Amino acid sequence: MSHGVTDEATARVAWARIAEPTDSVALGLIRRFGYVDAFEIAARGGTSPSGKPVDRFAARLDRLDLERDREICGRIGARLLVPGDPEWPEALDDLEDPPWCLWVRGPVDLTQVPPRSVAVVGARASTAYGNHVAAEIGSGTGARGFTVVSGAAFGIDAAAHRGALAVEAPTVAVLAGGVDRPYPTAHTDLIGQIARTGVVLSEVPPGSSPTRPRFLARNRLIAALATGTVVVEAGLRSGALSTLRAAVHLGRPVAAVPGPVTSMVSAGCHQAVREECATLVTDAAEVVDLLGAIGSDDMAPQKRGPERPEDQLDQLPHLVWSTLAPFRSRTVEEITVQAGLSANEVLGALGDLQSRGLAELRLDGWGRA
Amino acid sequence: MSHGVTDEATARVAWARIAEPTDSVALGLIRRFGYVDAFEIAARGGTSPSGKPVDRFAARLDRLDLERDREICGRIGARLLVPGDPEWPEALDDLEDPPWCLWVRGPVDLTQVPPRSVAVVGARASTAYGNHVAAEIGSGTGARGFTVVSGAAFGIDAAAHRGALAVEAPTVAVLAGGVDRPYPTAHTDLIGQIARTGVVLSEVPPGSSPTRPRFLARNRLIAALATGTVVVEAGLRSGALSTLRAAVHLGRPVAAVPGPVTSMVSAGCHQAVREECATLVTDAAEVVDLLGAIGSDDMAPQKRGPERPEDQLDQLPHLVWSTLAPFRSRTVEEITVQAGLSANEVLGALGDLQSRGLAELRLDGWGRA
Repeated sequence: MSHGVTDEATARVAWARIAEPTDSVALGLIRRFGYVDAFEIAARGGTSPSGKPVDRFAARLDRLDLERDREICGRIGARLLVPGDPEWPEALDDLEDPPWCLWVRGPVDLTQVPPRSVAVVGARASTAYGNHVAAEIGSGTGARGFTVVSGAAFGIDAAAHRGALAVEAPTVAVLAGGVDRPYPTAHTDLIGQIARTGVVLSEVPPGSSPTRPRFLARNRLIAALATGTVVVEAGLRSGALSTLRAAVHLGRPVAAVPGPVTSMVSAGCHQAVREECATLVTDAAEVVDLLGAIGSDDMAPQKRGPERPEDQLDQLPHLVWSTLAPFRSRTVEEITVQAGLSANEVLGALGDLQSRGLAELRLDGWGRA
Repeated sequence: MSHGVTDEATARVAWARIAEPTDSVALGLIRRFGYVDAFEIAARGGTSPSGKPVDRFAARLDRLDLERDREICGRIGARLLVPGDPEWPEALDDLEDPPWCLWVRGPVDLTQVPPRSVAVVGARASTAYGNHVAAEIGSGTGARGFTVVSGAAFGIDAAAHRGALAVEAPTVAVLAGGVDRPYPTAHTDLIGQIARTGVVLSEVPPGSSPTRPRFLARNRLIAALATGTVVVEAGLRSGALSTLRAAVHLGRPVAAVPGPVTSMVSAGCHQAVREECATLVTDAAEVVDLLGAIGSDDMAPQKRGPERPEDQLDQLPHLVWSTLAPFRSRTVEEITVQAGLSANEVLGALGDLQSRGLAELRLDGWGRA
């Protein structure tokens, strides 16, 4: 029973069909023997050369029909991607257990997603507040050229997708079931709209149902496809926190939106900030600041009240002023480095700023007055 | 015109009468010449030995009447403290510009305040949410033996005092005007209640009116009298942030309570967390955790959802489990150190925890599953 599996690309599809994503036995066989030989071992059944039972795949092997899978793929307008394909998003290879292949629907080129994308995830049972903030972050990051990646679930996910769609920004929905099975079904229209303008993708074959382990596995793809992850609302046991953990393990920037401490659905966000896993963010500008390149247009403006006396400043004092922070103090040497000015220029500007009441000399350096 | 100022204690009171708190000319003279000689120079007027004008004190010197001040102090039931008095709170000496003296009303011994106290401050124009959280923190820290220090202002200050009073915990109100001038007048009853059960104090003499510079100067006393400071709600330009900055300069722990990002009165709290000046806290237990000694009863419980599978664990695996964090990973060596167990004991417990689904091995170590 070779099932015609003689090349890696075909073997990857066969593995996606017979094994759950991140199945440890499958991963072990593939790591040791490669996709084709590992499949051969699985198809033989019994025990592997190292003596481990490999019979968990038997039932699905019986029903494996790769030819029929190819037909379905064409019929539903999906494309199948494997590593090596020009559109394969290399960001996925950062995962310890990358997907074996992807089924993809939608016009957006997946290689264009990871360099400037943001995962916006959170509770299904979100509040109106959370939905509002998720939509604002979706539209605000979308308007700044970021692709919003999420899971098309109720609550925060949907609000984030809709925010991106509202500003006609591409958005990516990663499904836990097959790309031909919109889930939740109440989001059939939303997922259809994403498939027409962005991308809907899954690592499980068409026809697969979304199960709890697949939701958990799916979350690592959301984290891996995004430059960074923002959690908008999440209870202490929210599935969104698994996306956050995946992003942390990938070394990607992670942010969390605070909310009322009386709201249990913000408790996971607050805990992540307290554990110093997530940066507290309050709007799209701060998200982009976290994900964008330092020194680029992506830097968030320093939040402040309505009056801006510093708007009156000439370029040099304004440059020095912009290096000062309300709470943290900086030495003249640090300011000199940060502003790219001579010590004399910095000292002159600081005197100017101090006389205008915009800078203050503290015990440990200079700060915004 | 010596005004009978021949000793430091008397000179301190005279300085409090003729100079504003933190007046730079006064501070300069006192640092250089000491309280008595500096007062002599100020009383002579004209210029100081170093050629600086010292005539800003002339008008108040004309009205100085220390004998009458002593009478007033006795009449209003206040006591006057200077450094060296047994009740002088030494924590104030950490300030760059400590008060020259204090007028104090109320039964609590001030020396008992700083070792276990918390400043709870915030916006006057607070929300119902902020008042609720401030009262919860006031009562929760009060119930755990902390003295709540605040400014008796509208909003967060009053809610924090009232929370402490509700659990019959001592609370300290630091006023910007004289201790005989309750301000705001709508809080006359509140301040009276604090004076009967806790302490009301001020660095400006009885009869002094609360002015804007005195509010700012007062804030440094709140920060200095407390083990740490919690900001509950604060706009980006809130005066409460000056208390926060004072606490940061003193090297004391600082915390901020988050709120909706749509609430401008939480924006200052969020900014302080973003600048890593303040630790995010969500309840009194986390405040006490921040201020209390590590390893004491003050440590906040790890926040979690309703089910607690770890409650079923024996002592050794529970000890190892308690060293694991949901997001951060720890190496076996780190756990061994933290739990005080041998590597073999830790490895055995981790296997047990892993099999129960309570621990997971990640790329960078062990964590809570």
